[in-house]
Amino acid sequence: MANKAAPDAPPGSAGGTPTRRYSERSRQAIFEAALALVGEVGYEKLTIEGIAARAGVGKQTIYRWWPSKAAVLLDAFGSAADAYEHEGLPDTGDLAADLKVVLRATVDEFNDAAWQAPYRALVAAGTNDEELSRSFVGRLMEPGIRLYVERLRAAREAGELDPDVDLRIGAEMLLSPFSQRWLMRTGELTHAFVDTLVDQVLRGLRRRD
Amino acid sequence: MANKAAPDAPPGSAGGTPTRRYSERSRQAIFEAALALVGEVGYEKLTIEGIAARAGVGKQTIYRWWPSKAAVLLDAFGSAADAYEHEGLPDTGDLAADLKVVLRATVDEFNDAAWQAPYRALVAAGTNDEELSRSFVGRLMEPGIRLYVERLRAAREAGELDPDVDLRIGAEMLLSPFSQRWLMRTGELTHAFVDTLVDQVLRGLRRRD
Repeated sequence: MANKAAPDAPPGSAGGTPTRRYSERSRQAIFEAALALVGEVGYEKLTIEGIAARAGVGKQTIYRWWPSKAAVLLDAFGSAADAYEHEGLPDTGDLAADLKVVLRATVDEFNDAAWQAPYRALVAAGTNDEELSRSFVGRLMEPGIRLYVERLRAAREAGELDPDVDLRIGAEMLLSPFSQRWLMRTGELTHAFVDTLVDQVLRGLRRRD
Repeated sequence: MANKAAPDAPPGSAGGTPTRRYSERSRQAIFEAALALVGEVGYEKLTIEGIAARAGVGKQTIYRWWPSKAAVLLDAFGSAADAYEHEGLPDTGDLAADLKVVLRATVDEFNDAAWQAPYRALVAAGTNDEELSRSFVGRLMEPGIRLYVERLRAAREAGELDPDVDLRIGAEMLLSPFSQRWLMRTGELTHAFVDTLVDQVLRGLRRRD
C-alpha cells in the first residue's frame, strides 16, 4: 500500500488509528516548519535538516515521504490549496460578485507578509530552475487557473458569456494582472483594483445583447 | 560636466568628436558583452571583470560609468528600449490591428532564446532582490506599460473606448497575461494567443453602442 500511496500520503494512512494521527501531526509540523523557514532564510539556504529540527522530527522521517525540499514546499502549499479546489469557486449566479469576493480575499492573503514570504521564495527559485517552476505551476498555479476557467464555463453555459469566448484566456485576463502586480511590484493589490479588473474583464467576455 | 551627465551618458559626450565615437563604441561593446554573458552564466555569476574581458575594455572603464553589474544590464536593455519608446506604438487608427502588430513582434522576440536568456536572468535575480526589481520595473517595464496606456488613451480620445475605462488596468489586461506565460511558462506565446487576447480585452474596453 505505501508504495502506491500518493506522494503526499504518509505511510500508515488508515484513518483514525493512533499511527495515522501521529503521522498527520508530523506532516503538519513539517509543512509549518518548511513554510516558516523558507520565508526566513530563502529557498537556497533551506535544508531538510533545518526543516526537521524546526518540526521536531528526524530528517529520515522527511526523506521517507519526500525526495527534496522542493517537494516538501510544494506539498505544504498544495495541502492548503486542495481543500479550496475541492469546493470550487462560489456560484451564487452573480459572476461579478462571486469573482470579487474571491479576489478580494486573495488580495488580503497576498498582502499578508507571513503568507507571502515563502510563496515568493518558491516563485523566485522557480524563475531560475525550470523543473521546479514546472512543478510549481503544475501543482499550485494550474489548479487555481482551472477553478476560474470552470466558474467562467458555468457562466457561459448559463448564457451570461459570449458562446465564442476563450475561457482560458479569460481566466488569465483576471489572474495575470493580479500575479504580476504582486510578483513584480508593478502596482498595489487593493480591493478597488480587483473590482475594476473584474468589471473590465467581464465586459469583454459577456454575451452581447 | 561629467558629474552632471546622466548615468548612461559616458564622459566626453560632445557629439561627433573622436572621443565620443570611441566612447560610444566601448559602450555598445560593454552592453553586448553584458547581455551575452548574463545569458550564459546567469546573474549571480556575472562579474564586471567578466564583462570587461569580453568587451575588450579595462574594468575601470566600466566602473567609471556604472556603479554595479545591475546598472550595466539595466542600461543595456534600456538603451535598446529607448528608441522604441521615443516613437511610441503605431497609431494607424485601427487599435486592434496596431496592438496585434506590436504584440506579435514581441512574441517573436520573447521566443528568441538569445534574447530571452539575459532578460529572464535579470527578472529571476529581481524576484529575490527588491531593489534590483524596482530598478528593473522602473527602468524597463514601466516605460513599456506607459506606451500601451498612451495608445489606449489616444483611442479613448478618438471615441473608440468607453470614457470611464481605467487605462492602466486595461494595459495590464493586455500585457500581464503575456508576461506571465513567458515568465512562469503557463502557456505558449503564439500569434493566435495575442490575437485572441487583444480581441477579448478590447471588447471589455470599447465604448458601448
